Amino acid sequence: MSLTITGHIVNRFDSEMITIHNMIMAMGELAKSQLLKVLDLLENMNPELAGEVVANDVKLDNLEVKTDDEIIRVIARRGPVARDLRALLAMSKSVTDLERIGDEIEKISKLLIQLYAPGNSPPSDNLLRDIRRMGKAVMELLSGIMEVYKLMDSGRAKEVVRGHSEMDGYFRADLWRLLTFVMEDSRNVGHTVKLVLIIKAFERIGDHVKNIAEQVIYFAEGEDVRHLGSRQS
Amino acid sequence: MSLTITGHIVNRFDSEMITIHNMIMAMGELAKSQLLKVLDLLENMNPELAGEVVANDVKLDNLEVKTDDEIIRVIARRGPVARDLRALLAMSKSVTDLERIGDEIEKISKLLIQLYAPGNSPPSDNLLRDIRRMGKAVMELLSGIMEVYKLMDSGRAKEVVRGHSEMDGYFRADLWRLLTFVMEDSRNVGHTVKLVLIIKAFERIGDHVKNIAEQVIYFAEGEDVRHLGSRQS
Repeated sequence: MSLTITGHIVNRFDSEMITIHNMIMAMGELAKSQLLKVLDLLENMNPELAGEVVANDVKLDNLEVKTDDEIIRVIARRGPVARDLRALLAMSKSVTDLERIGDEIEKISKLLIQLYAPGNSPPSDNLLRDIRRMGKAVMELLSGIMEVYKLMDSGRAKEVVRGHSEMDGYFRADLWRLLTFVMEDSRNVGHTVKLVLIIKAFERIGDHVKNIAEQVIYFAEGEDVRHLGSRQS
Repeated sequence: MSLTITGHIVNRFDSEMITIHNMIMAMGELAKSQLLKVLDLLENMNPELAGEVVANDVKLDNLEVKTDDEIIRVIARRGPVARDLRALLAMSKSVTDLERIGDEIEKISKLLIQLYAPGNSPPSDNLLRDIRRMGKAVMELLSGIMEVYKLMDSGRAKEVVRGHSEMDGYFRADLWRLLTFVMEDSRNVGHTVKLVLIIKAFERIGDHVKNIAEQVIYFAEGEDVRHLGSRQS
C-alpha cells in the first residue's frame, strides 16, 4: 500500500484513510470501465452495451454517497486537523468530480442511442474519427489521474494538468470540423447538434479530471495550485 | 440574520458559521455583478468593461481560497459532527462551484473581446438575441440561488433545480440556430465557434448553480437529493 499521506501507516485513522482511498480508487476504476465502453461504442455501436452504460451509472452515484458518508464519519469520529483534514476535504471534492464524470459518460451513451436510433442514418466514419480521437485523449487523462491517485504523485498530477490543456484545442478543432460538415448538407444539423453535445461531454470529463489533479497537488504539496498556471482552460 | 442552521444562534461556533455564510454571500454577490457586466457587454460591447471583468476574476479566486481556509479552520477548531459538519462540507463544495462560475464568466468576457477585436465584423444582432436570452436565464438562476442561500430555503432551492432543467433546451435551441447560421454563409464558421463556446460557458454556469441548489437541499433537509429527479440534465 503506497498511501503515505502522513508517513506512518499504523493507527486506526490511517486505516480509515486507506479505506476511503480504496473507495475512491473503486469509483475511478468504474468510471474508466464505463468510458472504455463508450470508446467501444464509438467504434462499433451496440445499443445493448449503450443501455448497459446508462444503467451502470447508478453504481457510481451510490459509491459517491457511500464514500462521502465515510469521509464525514471519519472527520466526525477522529477530529483530524491540518493536513489530514485538508486531505479528507480534497477527497470529498474528488468524489464529486468522479461522480460527475459518470454523469457525462451516461449522457454520451444516451446521445449515441439517439444518434443510432432505428430509422436514422448513422453518423459517418469521417465525423466519428475526430470524436474518437478526443475520446481517447480523455481516456488517457482519466487513466492518468487514477495512476496519480494510486501513488499520490503530485509530479504526475502536474502532467495531467498539462495534458488537460490540450482539451480546449480538441474541442475547438472538432467543433470547427462539425460546423464545416453542416455547411455541406443542411440535413446534417440534427446529427451535428448531438455530436457537439458529445464533444462537450468529453471536454467536461477532462475538466473534472483536471479538478482532481489540482486537488492531489493541493494536498500532496500543501499548496494551493488551483489558481496557478491552469487559468487558460 | 436568518441563518438558523442549528436553530440556536448563540455560541461561538454559530457566529463562525455566520462568518462563512457571509463570505459565501459575498462570493455570490461578486459573481452576480460580474455576470451582470457580461449581460451588458452582450447589449453594448465595450472592451474596457470586458477587460475589467477578466481582471476581477482574481477576486473570486482569492475569496474561494479564504473561505475554504476558514471552513477548514472551523472544522479543525470546533470538531463539529453530524448536521453541522455536513453543512460545512456542503458549503465548501458550493464555494468551489461559485469560483468556477467566475471562471466561466471570465471565459465569456475573453471570447467577447476576441469576437469584437478590431478588424473583425461583429456578430449580428440576430445571433446575439438568442445568446442574450440564455444569459438572462442564467442570471435568474444565479440570483435565485443566492436568495436561496440567504434564507437557506430548500423549497426555493428545488425551484432553482427545476429552473435549471430548461438550460439544456436553451443550449440545444441556440446551437441549432447557430448551425443554421453557418449554413447560410461559410464565413461565419469562426464566429460560430466562439459563440458556441459562449453558450457552453453559460450552460456550465447553470450546472454550477444547480450543484449549489442541491447542496442547499441536502443540508437543509438532511437528505441526499443529488440523485433524485435531476438526472435528465
